[in-house]
Amino acid sequence: MADQDKQVHGNGAMEWRIKMADGSSQILVPEKGLASRLWHCLRAVIQGMAFKVCSFFRKAWEVGANDPRKVIHCLKVGMALTVVSLFYYMRPLYEGVGGNSMWAIMTVVVVFEHTAGATISKSLNRICGTSIAGFLAIGVHWVASQAGQKYEPIVVGVPLFLLASAATFTRFIPTLKARFDYGIMIFILTFSLVSVSGYRVDKLLEMAHQRISTIIIGTCLCILVTMLICPIWAGQELHALITRNMDKLANSLDGCVAQYFNASGSQEAGSEEAVHDKEMLLGYRCVLSSKATEDSMANFARWEPAHGRFNFRHPWKQYLKIGASMRSLASCIDTLNGCINSENKTPEYIKKNISNISLKVSTNTAIVIRELATTIKTMKKSSTTGTDILVAEMKGAAQELANLLKSYPPALINYHETPSTDRKADETNDHNIETQVSSTSSAVPFPLMEIVQVVTIASLLIQVTTRVEGIVKAVRELADLAEFKSQPSDRSKQNLPNKKVSPHDQDQQIVEANIQMV
Amino acid sequence: MADQDKQVHGNGAMEWRIKMADGSSQILVPEKGLASRLWHCLRAVIQGMAFKVCSFFRKAWEVGANDPRKVIHCLKVGMALTVVSLFYYMRPLYEGVGGNSMWAIMTVVVVFEHTAGATISKSLNRICGTSIAGFLAIGVHWVASQAGQKYEPIVVGVPLFLLASAATFTRFIPTLKARFDYGIMIFILTFSLVSVSGYRVDKLLEMAHQRISTIIIGTCLCILVTMLICPIWAGQELHALITRNMDKLANSLDGCVAQYFNASGSQEAGSEEAVHDKEMLLGYRCVLSSKATEDSMANFARWEPAHGRFNFRHPWKQYLKIGASMRSLASCIDTLNGCINSENKTPEYIKKNISNISLKVSTNTAIVIRELATTIKTMKKSSTTGTDILVAEMKGAAQELANLLKSYPPALINYHETPSTDRKADETNDHNIETQVSSTSSAVPFPLMEIVQVVTIASLLIQVTTRVEGIVKAVRELADLAEFKSQPSDRSKQNLPNKKVSPHDQDQQIVEANIQMV
Repeated sequence: MADQDKQVHGNGAMEWRIKMADGSSQILVPEKGLASRLWHCLRAVIQGMAFKVCSFFRKAWEVGANDPRKVIHCLKVGMALTVVSLFYYMRPLYEGVGGNSMWAIMTVVVVFEHTAGATISKSLNRICGTSIAGFLAIGVHWVASQAGQKYEPIVVGVPLFLLASAATFTRFIPTLKARFDYGIMIFILTFSLVSVSGYRVDKLLEMAHQRISTIIIGTCLCILVTMLICPIWAGQELHALITRNMDKLANSLDGCVAQYFNASGSQEAGSEEAVHDKEMLLGYRCVLSSKATEDSMANFARWEPAHGRFNFRHPWKQYLKIGASMRSLASCIDTLNGCINSENKTPEYIKKNISNISLKVSTNTAIVIRELATTIKTMKKSSTTGTDILVAEMKGAAQELANLLKSYPPALINYHETPSTDRKADETNDHNIETQVSSTSSAVPFPLMEIVQVVTIASLLIQVTTRVEGIVKAVRELADLAEFKSQPSDRSKQNLPNKKVSPHDQDQQIVEANIQMV
Repeated sequence: MADQDKQVHGNGAMEWRIKMADGSSQILVPEKGLASRLWHCLRAVIQGMAFKVCSFFRKAWEVGANDPRKVIHCLKVGMALTVVSLFYYMRPLYEGVGGNSMWAIMTVVVVFEHTAGATISKSLNRICGTSIAGFLAIGVHWVASQAGQKYEPIVVGVPLFLLASAATFTRFIPTLKARFDYGIMIFILTFSLVSVSGYRVDKLLEMAHQRISTIIIGTCLCILVTMLICPIWAGQELHALITRNMDKLANSLDGCVAQYFNASGSQEAGSEEAVHDKEMLLGYRCVLSSKATEDSMANFARWEPAHGRFNFRHPWKQYLKIGASMRSLASCIDTLNGCINSENKTPEYIKKNISNISLKVSTNTAIVIRELATTIKTMKKSSTTGTDILVAEMKGAAQELANLLKSYPPALINYHETPSTDRKADETNDHNIETQVSSTSSAVPFPLMEIVQVVTIASLLIQVTTRVEGIVKAVRELADLAEFKSQPSDRSKQNLPNKKVSPHDQDQQIVEANIQMV
């Protein structure tokens, strides 16, 4: 019967029938459906998991491809751990440090960090915390052993409670937390382990000696591996982060002002180039959120020995100041960007009027920022007057912008009242403006609302230049503190843009333009 | 001789003399100076140290006084440690977990964190990491024991290297790092300890059982103490941080606009009130730098069970969105503040013109922000129309400001051309403006530069209102996601300011004012 059914359906699937009392048979369809549904479910689950695993690996691959040093770091950790495990297998060494080689392994796992500074900081913290706590605990234990067995738990317990509470409290004090947080934790850990285990183990001093020596073995191994094999220095990372962020700021500023004034839309919205541009425009956002990274990098960098071009006492704190002034600039660019994307658009013909000089301000400012980035990158002061000239150029451009604003309205009213088709003719033909103004401005209110966007952008640009001066100041302080070498060649002149002098300020010396506006 | 000298000098100081060949004696002055200098030095060092210790304790006292819960946390840590140490002293318990009670102590020290969420997260990470790594390592150990003693180090070493490297790499993947960083570290630690120690210790399963049970004892104790005794919930902290930051933003905005327009300087610069005001004005800076705290709080909060008014699956991620939109507002306020403190001041008489309406915009915006803070604080939606009305008020005020800008220039030109002594008379006497404009504006360029500051401030204020709308949207999403109860009483009306309708928009409905500007 089952055979017959198989042949009837011809699809090779098994089928169950119930013979009814009346001789007819009924196919149990749902069960077949259940099996296939189960199969579908299982397949979906497997596919889903496979997809998740695939996307996980893709993400992991991206992480590794973006920064191959991370992969190297992982291999370093694996190596250090394998090497320290060998202590266990080598009989002579094993006899030396005994079963305590556990502490060496633990030290490697816990202490090995991504940057050399972090590893050194944790290593020193661990060694100091363990030593101090160990000897203190042995002292407490000695007192306790004098007190007799009955009072021993109390004599051990009360200092444990007090010291643990006090040490935990010190972890809340910011200056201590930044530098010694790990050491304090290890202090509490060691103190409680030793003072309690002292109750059972008599050979406390021997144990302390073994533990400290294994920890020193572990930390030395970590420090050697981290400093000798493809070292990643926190200081260098901080240095690179700051210069990278400066370039991002320059690109954002340049890009968003250029986009606003050349809004002809030569690019297609979805094109790869447009996506890349969009990313570049929003680069300032990285700067806004980089405080935590900078703080920890600077904190680790101070533990690092001299490396590359950096001395032991390199003024890392100054990088934090530079970072702060960069964030201040970034928030100004954020507002500028918001202003550019706002809905109250200024008509194109008004924008044209201010376009050249605004672009000049943003370009000059970006050049100053890039020059500062180069100064930090190369650690060489640009020729004595180099940055000065660029800053003066920037201020000069800002002053031009201010001058243009001063003389703006008559032209504007003229533009507004003249039909748009005639505008180009009028641009070359400025001498008749005044006569027109006198006859038109009295009748129709001046359209300030239309130029609000452009005025705001101009005044934000001027504010951007003053904030850039803050960065210039901070970078100069860094150059003095870190004793950057001065550069005799006049390389900075290559960066200078062709100076276009607008008719409004031909009589004005740029270097004089020292007036801070808005 | 020495005695005589003492009497001569009469100051009780000892003095050394050298008898010269010619009978005269010479006082060895430098040595006396050295001693007293040493004493002075010592005293200075002691004083310096005493001062440092004093200032340290003062700082510590401040930390404790500002947040007494930190002190309670420390006592909790001390208590948990003391309790777990008792396992060592109680013989029956000691027999149960043996010498491994060390792991319980270590667990308490390492796992006990300030907030309940962090403690729970670390506890679960520790338990899972230890268990998975333990059983994996026992498997590796079994394979190694089958391979024979010669190949054992290789069979153990290769997986150790590979797993340690791979696990370290996963710590770089952001999603895993945020949640399982500690677990992965413990995984590496346990795997290496067990797979290596397996070479010596045969009773691996028993050891694993003991270690896991001691860790569970430690973590349970931590979780109980952290959740039952004055618990500090990460979620609640995040909730409070967001509302506190909102209040700060409202105060900053209110304060800096008010300070600009009422710059009569009723306060003395150095007075306590002025310092307090200054602090209040710069409150927005806390918001700019709070990203890292918010991220970690939200990350810990998701591990917390239902507590207080928060369910287990409270939408903590939404708080991060609110935080991001608040930072966007804060950077706008930062720019506004920079603009207000810039050197290109607008003359008082021009400011007066726009003062009322600007103050109205900032007050209304601050009211909206405070209303949002109240919504989050109470976790109750304000009456259906409550926030809507406030937002409409804010938009209406912004629209009024825009309208004022539209009609601004004629009055301004009038002010500029009229001698300043006559200004007050003119304010009440607006009907003669147009005739004046026609006769004056043609001769002298319109002083746009003078009003640039005020126009920028106005347009930034309008941008502030659009950014506040972003916060409003984010808070509404939170209210929907977290199912805030709606509040029938019309409490929000108490917050409404007296609505002053300026002559410019009498014919305009405020609720219609939906135009986003600048």
